[in-house]
Amino acid sequence: MIESIAILGTGLLGTSAGLALRAAGFRGSIVGWNRSPEQAQVALTMGAIDSVAADPLQAAKEGNAVLLAMPIYATLDFMEKLSGVLGCDHLVTDVGSTKRQISEAAGRLFNTPERAAFLPGHPMAGKERSGAALADADLFRGAVWLFTDDPDCKWSAHSMELVKGWREWVVAMGSKTIDLDPVRHDDLVAWVSHLPQFVATALSALLQQEVGDAPELKDVGGRGLREMTRLGASPYSMWRDIAYTNTEAVEAALHALEQRLAHLRENLRTPELRDEFEQANRFRRE
Amino acid sequence: MIESIAILGTGLLGTSAGLALRAAGFRGSIVGWNRSPEQAQVALTMGAIDSVAADPLQAAKEGNAVLLAMPIYATLDFMEKLSGVLGCDHLVTDVGSTKRQISEAAGRLFNTPERAAFLPGHPMAGKERSGAALADADLFRGAVWLFTDDPDCKWSAHSMELVKGWREWVVAMGSKTIDLDPVRHDDLVAWVSHLPQFVATALSALLQQEVGDAPELKDVGGRGLREMTRLGASPYSMWRDIAYTNTEAVEAALHALEQRLAHLRENLRTPELRDEFEQANRFRRE
Repeated sequence: MIESIAILGTGLLGTSAGLALRAAGFRGSIVGWNRSPEQAQVALTMGAIDSVAADPLQAAKEGNAVLLAMPIYATLDFMEKLSGVLGCDHLVTDVGSTKRQISEAAGRLFNTPERAAFLPGHPMAGKERSGAALADADLFRGAVWLFTDDPDCKWSAHSMELVKGWREWVVAMGSKTIDLDPVRHDDLVAWVSHLPQFVATALSALLQQEVGDAPELKDVGGRGLREMTRLGASPYSMWRDIAYTNTEAVEAALHALEQRLAHLRENLRTPELRDEFEQANRFRRE
Repeated sequence: MIESIAILGTGLLGTSAGLALRAAGFRGSIVGWNRSPEQAQVALTMGAIDSVAADPLQAAKEGNAVLLAMPIYATLDFMEKLSGVLGCDHLVTDVGSTKRQISEAAGRLFNTPERAAFLPGHPMAGKERSGAALADADLFRGAVWLFTDDPDCKWSAHSMELVKGWREWVVAMGSKTIDLDPVRHDDLVAWVSHLPQFVATALSALLQQEVGDAPELKDVGGRGLREMTRLGASPYSMWRDIAYTNTEAVEAALHALEQRLAHLRENLRTPELRDEFEQANRFRRE
């Protein structure tokens, strides 16, 4: 049912989606657009898209599915613009890392009988560095792709088919789909995605201050240190919008970890340390 | 010069050392002993040792090099015992993760003309799970192996040769050696090894509490979450002695990270967040 896709935003995720769709057997047209035209050219050269669009709204109108693959505030801006130009024969979906604001906008701007359908999505895949050149047809293989559409939303039969079509392509790209309420989504990813990122950032920044002047000593930490700081390479440009759109949940998670670290620090020589290791062991065992 | 080695403690590190020595071409005898005889049998079956010793002190006396591969307090206990039974034709070395107390004991119990030589060592290699069965001949390949011997220590010519011999085997096992003052060693590893471990433990324990009742949701975090919590599987039995013998340096590192996390939490919506990401990016770039 999905015959042509416009990928708006051909960075790491958008370009990987184009490659993964092709690898999964998608034969329709894929047109791409990126705010920075160089990234669109890279996606074209890699075979992730068939052509580069000059005008993203025109490209969206000409296809029947639109994938928004850009930071959250840019996604929200495009939702406003697309809502005015697309009709009920279109599906729009996205890859934004927080879903409360995007799901609210979807209810406000889409998902009525005369308007385009909007399926809020979030693949739990990525790399610590961005850009089309790092795209990978296997990026979504084995990953979870979350959806947070409103179960009470009244899609037309045609919209339902487009939504079903996109969900099938996501599975064909190798992902496992899970449906969540958007508020529950944002709470959950604050714990399992945003907290690990901000911890890696704080740890890397602290270590840069403490041992950054002795680069050879970074080798000393070995694999554990490399893994615990890999996400420290993640760009601010991507995480700014996440910090802004999930502030309270991230604050709560960070505060809870600060307290947990203080508890551990105060108990380095007491049996409480054993309890903490055993609780941590359980997380890895289950 | 080193013709026979007694490996006291055939857990992950001791058994890996036996395998790595053989892979590097060591042709002398390797006798092994472990507090739990099952672990020594595993090491024997894997070919890491030629025979299992009934009496560790007797085995130490019969070889000319002893590798202590056990937790720190057990290492300190064995140093006391070995000091009384070994003479100046022996070298003792270890793999303990903190070096201040071990280096002090080395100066007190060894390293005089009539006594055995003691070379305090610390390979920055390991796994988050312990035991001989996980041993690997390549465990030390590409790792840093730290030494903290006293540069003013007066070794006999014979001891010097044994020390030089062990250092050459360490290089032959694939490690890069770095020499450090023991106090500097303990400060440095508090930052690049102990802090990452305790953060992974606290993060894993917290996540077990928050999302541990929904195991399928652990998949949501993907590679980042897996890496940030892998060390959460590390056993208390190994880390207890580290927490006890490097308490002040670990407390200082944990406290600094708590403050850094609080700073980040208070600045999720300010330009300070950009500075923190940029500082973290530098750590990964340099």
